[in-house]
Amino acid sequence: MFKKSFLKKIAKKEKVTFAFLEKQFKRGRIVIPINKKRDLTKPTALGEGLKVKINTNIGASTGKNDINQELKKLKTAINAGSDAIMDLSVGDNLNKVRKRILKNCPVPLGTVPIYQVVSEVEKRKGSFEKMTFDDVWDVLKTQAEEGVDFFTLHAGILKKTIKTIQRKKRIGGIVSRGGAILTRWMYVNNVENLIYQNFDKILDLAKKYNITISLGDALRPGAIADSSDKLQLSELEVLGQLVKRCRKKGVQVMVEGPGHIRLDEIALNMLLQKKVCDNAPFYVLGPLPTDIAAGYDHITSAIGGAIAALSGADFLCVVTPAEHLRHPSVEDIKDGVIASRIAAHSVDVLRFKDEWERDYNLSLHRARREWSSLFPLTLDPKKARHYRKDKKTSKDICSMCGNFCSLKMMEKCNLLK
Amino acid sequence: MFKKSFLKKIAKKEKVTFAFLEKQFKRGRIVIPINKKRDLTKPTALGEGLKVKINTNIGASTGKNDINQELKKLKTAINAGSDAIMDLSVGDNLNKVRKRILKNCPVPLGTVPIYQVVSEVEKRKGSFEKMTFDDVWDVLKTQAEEGVDFFTLHAGILKKTIKTIQRKKRIGGIVSRGGAILTRWMYVNNVENLIYQNFDKILDLAKKYNITISLGDALRPGAIADSSDKLQLSELEVLGQLVKRCRKKGVQVMVEGPGHIRLDEIALNMLLQKKVCDNAPFYVLGPLPTDIAAGYDHITSAIGGAIAALSGADFLCVVTPAEHLRHPSVEDIKDGVIASRIAAHSVDVLRFKDEWERDYNLSLHRARREWSSLFPLTLDPKKARHYRKDKKTSKDICSMCGNFCSLKMMEKCNLLK
Repeated sequence: MFKKSFLKKIAKKEKVTFAFLEKQFKRGRIVIPINKKRDLTKPTALGEGLKVKINTNIGASTGKNDINQELKKLKTAINAGSDAIMDLSVGDNLNKVRKRILKNCPVPLGTVPIYQVVSEVEKRKGSFEKMTFDDVWDVLKTQAEEGVDFFTLHAGILKKTIKTIQRKKRIGGIVSRGGAILTRWMYVNNVENLIYQNFDKILDLAKKYNITISLGDALRPGAIADSSDKLQLSELEVLGQLVKRCRKKGVQVMVEGPGHIRLDEIALNMLLQKKVCDNAPFYVLGPLPTDIAAGYDHITSAIGGAIAALSGADFLCVVTPAEHLRHPSVEDIKDGVIASRIAAHSVDVLRFKDEWERDYNLSLHRARREWSSLFPLTLDPKKARHYRKDKKTSKDICSMCGNFCSLKMMEKCNLLK
Repeated sequence: MFKKSFLKKIAKKEKVTFAFLEKQFKRGRIVIPINKKRDLTKPTALGEGLKVKINTNIGASTGKNDINQELKKLKTAINAGSDAIMDLSVGDNLNKVRKRILKNCPVPLGTVPIYQVVSEVEKRKGSFEKMTFDDVWDVLKTQAEEGVDFFTLHAGILKKTIKTIQRKKRIGGIVSRGGAILTRWMYVNNVENLIYQNFDKILDLAKKYNITISLGDALRPGAIADSSDKLQLSELEVLGQLVKRCRKKGVQVMVEGPGHIRLDEIALNMLLQKKVCDNAPFYVLGPLPTDIAAGYDHITSAIGGAIAALSGADFLCVVTPAEHLRHPSVEDIKDGVIASRIAAHSVDVLRFKDEWERDYNLSLHRARREWSSLFPLTLDPKKARHYRKDKKTSKDICSMCGNFCSLKMMEKCNLLK
């Protein structure tokens, strides 16, 4: 699928041996989402034994369709350290929006193709419920040809699931937009999930363009009261089977996961997914260990993301402070990416020498109050510098301890490294 | 020590039985910091089996001494949900500052008395290194008489430790201000730690006023490279012995802990402290699982705090975004308290019915898009409302999914609770 030289480049970037990367890639434990049509300046590999990666969702909404704003978010996310981008646009002119994003995106770009399908069907036929697989197929082909690197497909939610939901109503319902769309479509038309039905055909397309499939979790809990419930776990079983089908066809595959998870069930969820999905890379949204922090869910997500990554999650989806409330602003995107970076780095620092050295060196500079060497090692040097520009700060100390700087006192005792 | 009626009131507030509270209190697994002279409108109990509590540090610095600003921080911290306050002021007019804070503080107030001691000695004698126990004693008596509810005492760092530090230099050095002061003092004067030397006398004073002792961790790592090192663990051993001495004298005691801890060592640290300190309540600063997030350390701390609390920490000290950079602003305090509240709540929600119901009810309202019922259940209704006031938001949906609101689609399928 990939040339040896490309894999060698990736191995070098990831600071692992080529042999390790190749082995993990062949086993499907590592994926490298890149469309055959694309030439990424910053390709990203995901999976067991690699650094934890993060994805940022951008894209126009039905009420918010300002392409320049979305391009600004793209740039902000990349600068803050996002390893992948998803364009989740809905509404008008989606091809145009996506083309601009693709052109400016140096990292893998993913989409949820069903979003474009329903946006267009709604306009053309008056209701997205009239969607047919032909509508889906047209969008998939267009996006594949344009160069989208990974597709989120909600193929794991089945018609029979609707009865289970009706019987065991959930607190948070279905919060996956793709999942809700397909559920509503199956409910109205009384037929099987058209993505699941046509999965093999889609895989042939994915194979042709080397598009990575990201198996969406349509039934991810949207409230911790629904955490690890029957619906979620039954979908996971289906996802495990779909992983096998992807691999059999030679299509790269990763799996998406929750969502809202009780703090004490996060590790369990990671282990279970790895088990059920034969160690396919795990891509989690959050997870969020509480529902009450609207406006601060980037922090809730950093807590969940760090624990998830420590327990095996490979890919964290950024949650911004706007989550649950509004379409995110550029500032929201930045705050979200930084929070996810903290979570990812808290785990990477334990596993990779270069990451460990970053903390080590920063702390050495901190102890010596070598501020100008310290700042470039922080996650957001601009913010750190801004904070340090406090009027009452002298060269040697900060306004926190003032003259009673513990480090300065240590230096006087010759107790510093 | 306490009247039965007071303990009953606390048990009711904590939603535990009186028998449980009394038993845990007698065993020293729960403390209730309140000076005999004080009458708190919001008393706080800490320890095993109770909700996780949080403390906020405020106070003037040598360069920043604006009492109104500190009172604003106090109010902000209390409104955001802080269960205790520490006045860490250094500099001038400390009695005046503290009196104003005490008067306005409805929750337990703690101090690090050595800060006032060195501030005054530095002024009076030209250098804090000339401090004697008489100077310490004067401050302790004044603060006790005024009503301070808990004292942080760095009694666990001993003279012999200095040699170990000289031999095994640390990356982050000593970052505890109290620890650094005492180390410098011991180094210059070549005598044993005067707090340790006079510990029994101090305990008699604490007993007289029912002041809770918070055993400071002078040797908490200030860099993850120093995480769980020999210095930290050797001090913990001393703290374990001091816990016994406090309890023998009938003085309430809790123990302070790090600081910067590797993500994979946080749980271990909690278990170890509980073991070594015979289950005395554990009060942690952070912990921070990475050193590189200056400007965002409230998020780093939320990650560490949640894991710590899940593993046994009882009391989280707020870390603000200003940590490592400057004296915190009112806004920094708010951000820090909210981040700690998220960490604490992520654990409480698993253990207490009323906390669980808060998430449950919020999520029910969320699924039904009942925004006005949802907001009061969030941690910061004002911010959530502000975010929701997006121009493109209609009554029923938000600007995130626009017309393709997953919950609205679910409702149409009758799939919501």
